[in-house]
Amino acid sequence: MSDPLATLVGELARLPSIGPKTASRLAHHLLKVSRVEAQNLTQAILDVKDLLFNCGTCNAITPVNPCYICSDPHRDRTRICVVEEPFNIKPIERTGEHRGTYHVLLGALSPQRGIGPKEIATDQLLNRLEGVEEVILATNPNVEGEATALYLARLLKSKGIEVSRLAFGMPVGGDIEYTDEVTLGRSLAGRRLI
Amino acid sequence: MSDPLATLVGELARLPSIGPKTASRLAHHLLKVSRVEAQNLTQAILDVKDLLFNCGTCNAITPVNPCYICSDPHRDRTRICVVEEPFNIKPIERTGEHRGTYHVLLGALSPQRGIGPKEIATDQLLNRLEGVEEVILATNPNVEGEATALYLARLLKSKGIEVSRLAFGMPVGGDIEYTDEVTLGRSLAGRRLI
Repeated sequence: MSDPLATLVGELARLPSIGPKTASRLAHHLLKVSRVEAQNLTQAILDVKDLLFNCGTCNAITPVNPCYICSDPHRDRTRICVVEEPFNIKPIERTGEHRGTYHVLLGALSPQRGIGPKEIATDQLLNRLEGVEEVILATNPNVEGEATALYLARLLKSKGIEVSRLAFGMPVGGDIEYTDEVTLGRSLAGRRLI
Repeated sequence: MSDPLATLVGELARLPSIGPKTASRLAHHLLKVSRVEAQNLTQAILDVKDLLFNCGTCNAITPVNPCYICSDPHRDRTRICVVEEPFNIKPIERTGEHRGTYHVLLGALSPQRGIGPKEIATDQLLNRLEGVEEVILATNPNVEGEATALYLARLLKSKGIEVSRLAFGMPVGGDIEYTDEVTLGRSLAGRRLI
């Protein structure tokens, strides 16, 4: 006979950043809470599976198709901001600096993991270029994100699209002394006249 | 209209040791996994609520009543090991040193949080003392566990029961230099002739 508690610990330990000890603590917590509380959690889990999907245009996570941003007539359709994952959109929206639309690649290029241009939403982006003036590459500032940005920049420039990349530099409120040398180097190289 | 993803992040953030960032990461992970994987998790959560309960005798978590230990004829019924929580039983079982039964208090005394003897399973323990020779107090080595042990020791000794407490001392494989002074003090006070 299988042990329901051990099964739950095993399922929880499959989640990212949840080790066996945290899984055990969570399982015992769930054992203690009311059934209603447990059901609120399980319903919330199943709701994201059942009610949300990727926007057919930009791949953002949405309960309606097209998503709120793609269907908003006030957004600037000449500027597309390209991100790796759906959850990269919200932080950019919060800045209020981008009034254009988005395109979610659903990944980044990674030859080591066998992820090439066909494995991410590259073709879908190329099919959206009519009337587009600028593509802003907001992939992550790591090896894979940089490789993806370089690949897309070359491809898009060959089609006459203006391509920009998020600026690298010191974080606001940071400290030169504690900024790593790669970031500081990029910050110097990207210096602007004032 | 409520956002299913925000709802899930909120539900996950209610769990112990899950902050808003981890909740967000977990929610996006659950958004990505297959519905079958998500369902395995939700079913495991509901199963612990539906299939497990507290043993009517000792309060251990069990799918049958009485639990496996309480119904095992080979266990020594003259020795009861008292613990705070159901999940304290397994580590003691693993030592193989205790062949008696258990009693789970489902908490510890805490005047600050308004938890007195009536709020934990004290009376239930007193009703189990017939034929019992020794009660081993295995409450946690912290303020609340110690207070609970002292309270129960006085109560049980007044009824002529032998009462013992887990030994305090240096962890096996530890180092005197890195043992805190309180533990080292208890280790000295509890020294044994060899």
